[in-house]
Amino acid sequence: MRQVAILGIGQTAIGEHWDQSLRDIGGQAALAALQDAGLEQVQALYVGNMLSPLVSGQNQLGAFFGDWIGLWQQEAVKVEAACGSGAAAFRAALMAVASGEVDSALALGVEKMTDKAGHDVTAALATAADGDYEVEQGVSFVGLNALIMQRYMHEFGWKHGDFAPFSINAHANAVHNPFARLREKISLEKFERSAMIATPINLLDASPVGDGAAAAVLVPADRVNTLPGRPRVTVAASASATDTIAVHSRKDPLVLAAAHASARRCYEMAGVTPDDIDVLELHDAFSIMSALSLEACGFAERGQGVRLGLDEAITIKGRIPVCTRGGLKARGHPVGATGMYQIVEVAQQLRCECDGTQVDGAAIGMAQNIGGSGASVVTHILAAN
Amino acid sequence: MRQVAILGIGQTAIGEHWDQSLRDIGGQAALAALQDAGLEQVQALYVGNMLSPLVSGQNQLGAFFGDWIGLWQQEAVKVEAACGSGAAAFRAALMAVASGEVDSALALGVEKMTDKAGHDVTAALATAADGDYEVEQGVSFVGLNALIMQRYMHEFGWKHGDFAPFSINAHANAVHNPFARLREKISLEKFERSAMIATPINLLDASPVGDGAAAAVLVPADRVNTLPGRPRVTVAASASATDTIAVHSRKDPLVLAAAHASARRCYEMAGVTPDDIDVLELHDAFSIMSALSLEACGFAERGQGVRLGLDEAITIKGRIPVCTRGGLKARGHPVGATGMYQIVEVAQQLRCECDGTQVDGAAIGMAQNIGGSGASVVTHILAAN
Repeated sequence: MRQVAILGIGQTAIGEHWDQSLRDIGGQAALAALQDAGLEQVQALYVGNMLSPLVSGQNQLGAFFGDWIGLWQQEAVKVEAACGSGAAAFRAALMAVASGEVDSALALGVEKMTDKAGHDVTAALATAADGDYEVEQGVSFVGLNALIMQRYMHEFGWKHGDFAPFSINAHANAVHNPFARLREKISLEKFERSAMIATPINLLDASPVGDGAAAAVLVPADRVNTLPGRPRVTVAASASATDTIAVHSRKDPLVLAAAHASARRCYEMAGVTPDDIDVLELHDAFSIMSALSLEACGFAERGQGVRLGLDEAITIKGRIPVCTRGGLKARGHPVGATGMYQIVEVAQQLRCECDGTQVDGAAIGMAQNIGGSGASVVTHILAAN
Repeated sequence: MRQVAILGIGQTAIGEHWDQSLRDIGGQAALAALQDAGLEQVQALYVGNMLSPLVSGQNQLGAFFGDWIGLWQQEAVKVEAACGSGAAAFRAALMAVASGEVDSALALGVEKMTDKAGHDVTAALATAADGDYEVEQGVSFVGLNALIMQRYMHEFGWKHGDFAPFSINAHANAVHNPFARLREKISLEKFERSAMIATPINLLDASPVGDGAAAAVLVPADRVNTLPGRPRVTVAASASATDTIAVHSRKDPLVLAAAHASARRCYEMAGVTPDDIDVLELHDAFSIMSALSLEACGFAERGQGVRLGLDEAITIKGRIPVCTRGGLKARGHPVGATGMYQIVEVAQQLRCECDGTQVDGAAIGMAQNIGGSGASVVTHILAAN
């Protein structure tokens, strides 16, 4: 398959946008990416979204957004993998261009969540868990993550405050991201005093949902060579993997096996090791997921992911900067859009467009998007060249 | 890209299966296809489904079904394009194998609808229309099709009874299909006396929904050469296209522009014309859609699709046999699964497995799956060779 480049990126600020519809938000990001690419149109559209049937009463988002941006008589479909939908849509667009099926494609991740408030969104998010064997027991997504975190603390001897650096780092970085939802620093003291949600997860362990959309235009890499002055970000690797949908079915609930498999395949494909990764956008839906992701991707041994936070290895100047634009924790987590935000943010790092949180000499970046409690994982490695 | 063959097919009988869950139904079809292919496992899974978030409270069907059939650490995602989801999933699987990304893939279309009764399903189906500009006005899917049919009758001078042959043919064929929902013949008299639903659409113009799943295993075509005695069905062409999501936005509501575009591209790709098609599984969700599909695919001039029914050209012995296993009208329309049923049925024709409705010498077959009122269309041409 041929090499693919990201020619344009676009995103909307994440928040509670009561005055904007699903259509408005997705359309803005799509058109921003097209404008950034300098293209009027593409040949195919892949939309990542999880909740629009439940929250907006809208299905068929391929045709829905294709129509809105003036793309007719071309392929346009939705891809869904719970909170991993965004990167899954990017991967579908990548396959379409890499295989030669089309010469340009738009990947759009979009989520509109504020039209349903409170309990409804918690219930809607629970559709990513196993309906028959998890949700039926009354467990929510934060509940599942709390069980995992409790077990992790018990097994490896960490205390709750040891997770604080993940959230503190994310908030510190988000201050510099105009698209982030929570642009405010937090202290260790504030973290520890924060309200408990589901023991041991407190408010500042958890990412906020929101309305948002992010998009990217993909074209064959050789096409970008002909455009002077345009930074070239290529896709060095892509891999998708799944695990059991229910946490209780896993051999070890503290191992993200699908995250490990998809990261390993990406390293092989790109010919790199974790040491070569300059920036990592990981899926910090809850702080425990940061630790488990770092372990699954080979940045820490089992049970030692927390150490990277305590050692400040995850900061912008650290060994492996993570969540450089705020991560799910502070940039925000518009679920089906999140994977596309991660990819857009890695592209921004490789294009040196991250004032305030630019990683010096960032040449290789990784984005890992997770659906459910580790059931669907899509990983990408991007490279500046 | 390399040529791809269908190595195995599987399906479940369509009906109201109150005793079977989404998981049961999809799992049965997936495992049947694997068994038919003689494979224990594949390398990737693509699930077509429209309503499971709304009806079963379950998202992430890729990981959900991957887990159920024992497929872990591989790609598994859901593709959604309303009632066109089934063929869209098949197309994703096709791309994965054709591009060389994987050497085997399973496409599964699945829908479980009876867990919500009556009004709820009508409302759920309406999520395929434009929520902001169609559903907001109170129009349902049958309502949109009624407007189109009314206009067609007015513009071209057909009367309601002229549409009867589509339904009569579908029911006559379904009698011989053990997986069909309505295995009973209907007469012209019964058609004309049938209860009106949304003028001019009566009960026998409309397809019944249901629970069902159909699946196919795809592998590189050269691999099948090595399996003696196994009929080889290859994918000769695949094309996906969209139109405006709202009917009122179209230049001509009586032209299925996306159906035309995707069919035309398929003919070019396969190097055939409509005259070469031996069997056509079209998307007869309502009888008006049969007429419009025949016109869009080049089997009839504008406004003359109805004539093919009246002339008996659509029967098993006719010039272009359609809905040879009962079509949406009588085999049934489990929405996100329908496109996979159509593909499985064309494969059955090419494998000469259609006792009672076998088309003599069927060598090239076409399946066209439509989402919304013509907004998402996915067409495939299969060939026996």
